Amino acid sequence: MIKKYVEENKDRMLEELFSLIRIPSVSAQTAHKEDMVRCAERWKELLLQAGVDKAEVMPSKGNPMVYAERMVDPKAKTVLVYGHYDVMPAEPFELWKTEPFEPVIKDGHIWARGADDDKGQSFMQAKAFEYLNKHNLLKHNMKFIFEGEEEIGSGSLGPFIEEHKDLLKCDVILVSDTGIISPDVPSITTGLRGLSYWQIEVTGPDHDLHSGTFGGAVANPINVLCKLIADVTGPDGKIRIPGFYDDVEEASDEERKLVASIPFNEEEYKKSIGVKALFGEEGYSTIERTGYRPSFDVCGIWGGYTGDGAKTVIPSKAYAKISSRLVPHQDHNKISQLVVDYFNRVAPDTVTVKVEKHHGGYGYVCPIDFPAYKAAERGFETVFGKRPLPVRIGGSIPIISTFEKLLGAKSVLMGFGLESNAIHSPNENMPVDLWLKGIETIINFHLEYDKEA
Amino acid sequence: MIKKYVEENKDRMLEELFSLIRIPSVSAQTAHKEDMVRCAERWKELLLQAGVDKAEVMPSKGNPMVYAERMVDPKAKTVLVYGHYDVMPAEPFELWKTEPFEPVIKDGHIWARGADDDKGQSFMQAKAFEYLNKHNLLKHNMKFIFEGEEEIGSGSLGPFIEEHKDLLKCDVILVSDTGIISPDVPSITTGLRGLSYWQIEVTGPDHDLHSGTFGGAVANPINVLCKLIADVTGPDGKIRIPGFYDDVEEASDEERKLVASIPFNEEEYKKSIGVKALFGEEGYSTIERTGYRPSFDVCGIWGGYTGDGAKTVIPSKAYAKISSRLVPHQDHNKISQLVVDYFNRVAPDTVTVKVEKHHGGYGYVCPIDFPAYKAAERGFETVFGKRPLPVRIGGSIPIISTFEKLLGAKSVLMGFGLESNAIHSPNENMPVDLWLKGIETIINFHLEYDKEA
Repeated sequence: MIKKYVEENKDRMLEELFSLIRIPSVSAQTAHKEDMVRCAERWKELLLQAGVDKAEVMPSKGNPMVYAERMVDPKAKTVLVYGHYDVMPAEPFELWKTEPFEPVIKDGHIWARGADDDKGQSFMQAKAFEYLNKHNLLKHNMKFIFEGEEEIGSGSLGPFIEEHKDLLKCDVILVSDTGIISPDVPSITTGLRGLSYWQIEVTGPDHDLHSGTFGGAVANPINVLCKLIADVTGPDGKIRIPGFYDDVEEASDEERKLVASIPFNEEEYKKSIGVKALFGEEGYSTIERTGYRPSFDVCGIWGGYTGDGAKTVIPSKAYAKISSRLVPHQDHNKISQLVVDYFNRVAPDTVTVKVEKHHGGYGYVCPIDFPAYKAAERGFETVFGKRPLPVRIGGSIPIISTFEKLLGAKSVLMGFGLESNAIHSPNENMPVDLWLKGIETIINFHLEYDKEA
Repeated sequence: MIKKYVEENKDRMLEELFSLIRIPSVSAQTAHKEDMVRCAERWKELLLQAGVDKAEVMPSKGNPMVYAERMVDPKAKTVLVYGHYDVMPAEPFELWKTEPFEPVIKDGHIWARGADDDKGQSFMQAKAFEYLNKHNLLKHNMKFIFEGEEEIGSGSLGPFIEEHKDLLKCDVILVSDTGIISPDVPSITTGLRGLSYWQIEVTGPDHDLHSGTFGGAVANPINVLCKLIADVTGPDGKIRIPGFYDDVEEASDEERKLVASIPFNEEEYKKSIGVKALFGEEGYSTIERTGYRPSFDVCGIWGGYTGDGAKTVIPSKAYAKISSRLVPHQDHNKISQLVVDYFNRVAPDTVTVKVEKHHGGYGYVCPIDFPAYKAAERGFETVFGKRPLPVRIGGSIPIISTFEKLLGAKSVLMGFGLESNAIHSPNENMPVDLWLKGIETIINFHLEYDKEA
């Protein structure tokens, strides 16, 4: 019945999606300021058509927010759907085979900017809701919040949530803005890493020195900086700063088993980044290293003479930018301070070391025994015929941890993107059958969620 | 008698020197191209006046050379005097209290560009020769070679020597282009360090990676570079590259005792460069570390994001420029290759390390039991009343080792400059009494040299 509905309504639903895609809501380009408002207004209309009780375009300190709700029972649970209506710039235009803002269906794919990220995906959520609402199957309340600044850092969303905590109150947040491994290997993103970032400045002599006159008698700040950095990581790939791993949660045996079954071709992986050998923490697989374990990477380093040829100098200063990806339950504030204290403690008295904390961000994890996760899992199983694998991705989506912090609710990251969908690139696309399967899967999530709740 | 002569001829000798100084022979500035030739011609006249048999302005691939000789006995020893007639630019002019190219005597000092470096000093050599020649005291032959490119790297001198080995044949080279510790603590420069210079490039992935997606699974080339550099120097300040010290000559007990008597105020030294503590190889004093021991300094390092704020990236590449000051008898070619081999050997297979040799230079040492050194020592003792201290300076004067290599002759660095003479800076100067003492000391050197020879 679900399958039949989506098949029968396919053309209408696609035409509705296309009306969103045709508005070039590029948040990074001020020329599209008015398109942002038009796109938000269009979303409002589409949500009303889908059956919400009310929908509003609400002001924020940046681009407007689209809020909508369908309250079936004040005492029932509430699912909040989050998505974003802004898209990445389409440049370089000349690499597109079709017009980026004029969606085309060809070879079974929708071709357009936003076909996946995130108009295509977030519209699946609206259409799943439409089905449930139309067929009186909704046993829980639903809210929608769509922002227009995700591609430029979600700067207005945090303050907006802070200001509208009651309005956005919910039991779980549902997000379709991530991907699956493949249609044959469905997966759910269960974790995102947090982040700490530092800048370190090492000062030796108070002015650059002649490396002949002074070389050998004075600590060189670059040499010292290299030593400070090198000492952090052991030959076993472990971070040797005392206390660094204290709050790192080890994955359960069940989860490690599932992770081990994620298809991974090391040769392909190495080839794709052009390295001869991988390096990481001993005792963990590559997937675990990026998803379940913290990292310590120098993102930038500079000091002394960096021009052509040779200049013999002992520079006064050397700098590095360093970041750690953090995992549950590492607190970025605690880790940031831990590292500052560590460098100050081990700095030799031959130099002055100044460590400055930059921004940080919380990681996120959705336990695989969390009821809403179980509902998502069964939703996938019903439609894809396979239990989805839990995947923790190495990057950060700071807004997910902001939701958890401000609303006290976990997110379930039910995304349906494929790597070949080319988000952020020319020729972004979405297979139509996958898009329809996504709608079906989300419908099943809601049905399963009511059983769990 | 010597003292009387220099006192009586002081005004004339100064006026002759001034005629050289008034020609602005700035080798770094092409506007002074003709001044270089005029200055060389003037030197020729002055040398002929001083009593040489012949003097010539000879072409080189750059500025002309001035060559002169006084052959008293083909079977006798020959002393070759080396100096340079070019000077540093006088800019910034506004900081000069007098005109840089119009010498003035004030407060007992000559004030002018070149008053010390090297017109003032090399002219002492000419006037010492004049005395000896006029009084029939010269028992050995004398040759003079003055170049016009010392301040821009002596690029033409090497090929000139190569081409005129017979003409420049000598037993010892005498150079007045260095300094003494103070008039109360006379000293002779006995050593210069050699140099090796490398650029190292570490390549990890073949393109920059997202530090979230890949952090923890891939060797970061900056982290690796830091480790490669940090591992070279031990906590005892020793360079841990196998074989690095193999050819380093240890100073004799006698020399170490003399070195220990060189006045050195550690607090003043630290204050002058703005450090809280010094660092260097265990078991050696600061003076020994810069004069008698090799160094390993990173002169520049760069890689990844170095702009404002934070960017989370694992860069594809990281670079460093590294130099070692070398001491006798370290061969810079051998050491350069040793370090290249070392880095290639210890590089982990997670990255590609490319080490490129830049230029290198030989060090120089004048043993303190070398006859000509002894003559210089006694020359100083006679005039200054104290045995001069041997001082090895940390920097390099490549031409001195070139002389040794091409002519097979040692140099005696009998310089008379003071730090307060401000060479290369505005208000360069030379105390007149020190200038006269220098002439006397050189005369005594020649007299002592004949006893030694």
